[in-house]
Amino acid sequence: MFKNMNFKLFHKYLIHDFKRKISQLSINSILQSTSVGDKINAKGWIRSLRKQKENVFIDISDGSTNQKLQIIVGSKLVPKNLTTGASISTSGVVQLSPKGQKEINAQEISIYGDCIVTDGYPFAPRKEYTSEYIRQHLHFRPRTNKFSSLLRIRSSAQCHFHNYLTSQGYVNIHTPILTSNDCEGAGEIFQVIPDNEKLIKSMKKEGQSPEEAFFNGKTFLSVSGQLHLESAAHALTKVYNLGPIFRAENSRSRLHLAEFYMLEAEIAFLENLEDLVVCVEDLVQNVTKMLLDSNESDIMNLNKENKRDFSWMDKKFVVLTYEEAENILIKEGKEYNPIDSISKENELFLVKHCGNIPVFVINWPKNIKPFYMKECPGDNTKVQALDLLVPDVGEVVGGSLRENDFNKLVGNIPNDSDELKWYFDLRKFGGVPTCGYGLGFERYLLFVTGITNIKDVIPFPRWPHNCSM
Amino acid sequence: MFKNMNFKLFHKYLIHDFKRKISQLSINSILQSTSVGDKINAKGWIRSLRKQKENVFIDISDGSTNQKLQIIVGSKLVPKNLTTGASISTSGVVQLSPKGQKEINAQEISIYGDCIVTDGYPFAPRKEYTSEYIRQHLHFRPRTNKFSSLLRIRSSAQCHFHNYLTSQGYVNIHTPILTSNDCEGAGEIFQVIPDNEKLIKSMKKEGQSPEEAFFNGKTFLSVSGQLHLESAAHALTKVYNLGPIFRAENSRSRLHLAEFYMLEAEIAFLENLEDLVVCVEDLVQNVTKMLLDSNESDIMNLNKENKRDFSWMDKKFVVLTYEEAENILIKEGKEYNPIDSISKENELFLVKHCGNIPVFVINWPKNIKPFYMKECPGDNTKVQALDLLVPDVGEVVGGSLRENDFNKLVGNIPNDSDELKWYFDLRKFGGVPTCGYGLGFERYLLFVTGITNIKDVIPFPRWPHNCSM
Repeated sequence: MFKNMNFKLFHKYLIHDFKRKISQLSINSILQSTSVGDKINAKGWIRSLRKQKENVFIDISDGSTNQKLQIIVGSKLVPKNLTTGASISTSGVVQLSPKGQKEINAQEISIYGDCIVTDGYPFAPRKEYTSEYIRQHLHFRPRTNKFSSLLRIRSSAQCHFHNYLTSQGYVNIHTPILTSNDCEGAGEIFQVIPDNEKLIKSMKKEGQSPEEAFFNGKTFLSVSGQLHLESAAHALTKVYNLGPIFRAENSRSRLHLAEFYMLEAEIAFLENLEDLVVCVEDLVQNVTKMLLDSNESDIMNLNKENKRDFSWMDKKFVVLTYEEAENILIKEGKEYNPIDSISKENELFLVKHCGNIPVFVINWPKNIKPFYMKECPGDNTKVQALDLLVPDVGEVVGGSLRENDFNKLVGNIPNDSDELKWYFDLRKFGGVPTCGYGLGFERYLLFVTGITNIKDVIPFPRWPHNCSM
Repeated sequence: MFKNMNFKLFHKYLIHDFKRKISQLSINSILQSTSVGDKINAKGWIRSLRKQKENVFIDISDGSTNQKLQIIVGSKLVPKNLTTGASISTSGVVQLSPKGQKEINAQEISIYGDCIVTDGYPFAPRKEYTSEYIRQHLHFRPRTNKFSSLLRIRSSAQCHFHNYLTSQGYVNIHTPILTSNDCEGAGEIFQVIPDNEKLIKSMKKEGQSPEEAFFNGKTFLSVSGQLHLESAAHALTKVYNLGPIFRAENSRSRLHLAEFYMLEAEIAFLENLEDLVVCVEDLVQNVTKMLLDSNESDIMNLNKENKRDFSWMDKKFVVLTYEEAENILIKEGKEYNPIDSISKENELFLVKHCGNIPVFVINWPKNIKPFYMKECPGDNTKVQALDLLVPDVGEVVGGSLRENDFNKLVGNIPNDSDELKWYFDLRKFGGVPTCGYGLGFERYLLFVTGITNIKDVIPFPRWPHNCSM
């Protein structure tokens, strides 16, 4: 085991008596894999409590499932201060309730931490709260039934995106959060500088402003990893990232955050918008199937009132050209102004109009889309771009073929931009056709959960005037 | 299919003739799953080129594997400008080379984009470059053989961390990048403000500084998601995140970046440091096994010269108390000053001294560790903390039990901190014992790949005076 070394000195430090497995069972494991008669220990937080003469019935949860575990304990064994919200450890025997569900006949119970509402705990037992109220207590929000379901769904969804794309041969590339490029920004960006003024002074070179001192230039938070992904796609063919993105917009709509997550993918050698449509449709359908499979009970838990309709999962999505979409809006008498493009209201109308199936809108006017999008063959007023609109949310994915002709691309930029020289280089040396898309991760979660406010599908929402914790 | 709607209008927009599968085969698939005689198309970038009288031998790669695909094409079919670095499409028949490897006998070949070194391409054929030189061309770096192996390894490693922790019942929680808390910072933090001065003016309330306008308070880039993870662990028991972390430090060492990735995990109801040691050991061993399984050829590719020794994967890691570590350093005559704690040099010495097996150092002096760590039972000068030191890199994981006694925790903070009231609340209401750790993702990659500079294991490194692209 130890070659070429003084073994004697160290064997005493090797700990041989560690338990190799943490023996603590989660409530999910207790409900799934224990047998009647098993003696077990369970730990969790009290979600509800009913006192009867002889016994107390306690429902506990530990976040491993949205199901609760019922503990039955003799009144005499119950410690003081046993209230909803308290954390306990209990040992007992697995038995079946009259309804056939596993429960624990407790032989002992102890409190880790009590939870006294009158001390300032914001959630009283048996009360329902609005999501606005719950959002004011972000640090306690994971303790609420619905939000813990959302967190498990979000966790599974991100894992499924990674696994699905990996299975399709994509390489995950962490695009930078800090960047010296401000390409899509149009002013809606955050700037980053060290907080320490002494540090800035010590690093500042002659002629530099304080903002430029640390990185030798102004530095921003990324608004998109696309351009960086493109550089990787020019070597690895299929690449993606799922990471945070930032926008300094003073928008408080139910669909906007200052910090949110985006799944971005870039694919080399794909030359047709139809192929990109298939990529996006396959992604959304496959990941949603994986999610319904892994988290059905959490999704049902969020949909007790409004059952989501997932029949779109097995259908081809609708594809409209931008012109076709325009014609529908005009024909149906919707307020539509070409200069403003398609409003949120009109997005939602189009989806409803097409039978609540996700709708691709393709071939967009060039003048409202970014410089890197590729023109439609035979129509230089349009670009080969797509938006995917989904029920209740509207746009959830945006993508396009990228202009891979060096001269055309450079011509699309009004001023000679030194900042983007590296991006033009990708076309100059070993250039290939590429395309890609960005999927708003939170918007996707709104779509599959039926939750209406984006602040309620991210653990720690940041929006104008709000960055608590 | 379309319930309750005007079906006729839309059936023409449903595209029925999309190919349901993108037919393009990756080079990995060609090498793995085609048969001799198959007619196929391959696309990729030329990595090398040998011209003979009758034929030209071309090696291409597309990033799907570190293996190259050999194309044999008659000299007459070869287009002009066929050079290393150019991107091509080729069609032909799969055959076996004299050595028994699959290759393509090409019937046609076309260039997507040429790659002329004299136009400014920084990599000439058949030349070796230092990693410092390659790093000056970040946008082309994924095209180099070794770095593309690294990117595939990095991608797999992140996926394995997600899957391993998910399999162990952990819930992924995206901790915020933007935060109003500056807890561990000690000045080494970045501040964030909108770049748009008009926006700041329009949002600024009376008495606020410009930095406070957007979020109603000064806002920073996160230096750790631990405290936020703790709030989720107090409901979901086992939580983690793998995300970017920022430090505004003027350090250019081979082990520091301004933006890097950290895997952080928090676990409720674990009360012994031994259990945390087991968690970390299991994580590192299991993920590394998964990685060797998925990316053996890439790891070998990076280790042609220096073969990594992975025998530690099946061994228990060494555990030293801080005191034992001190005694070894003193006995071995190393320069050691208790005030400076254990230097990088001494970390590396300890690991070598213990047979190049990863070494846990546990039970650290309280005065050099953060306020939230839990004291050792019976010794209030020590805390139940661990560092994991690994060969060639030193510290790769740091963790501890967290102080869960409300009064003790509050007592550890010199000034009454309103900012952390939410954190104290976790102990006041339904508090439980928790512990957790942070693993430096890039340092882990250095450890398993044998690469020596942290700038060479992240796609877009940011460090003082460097934030290009």
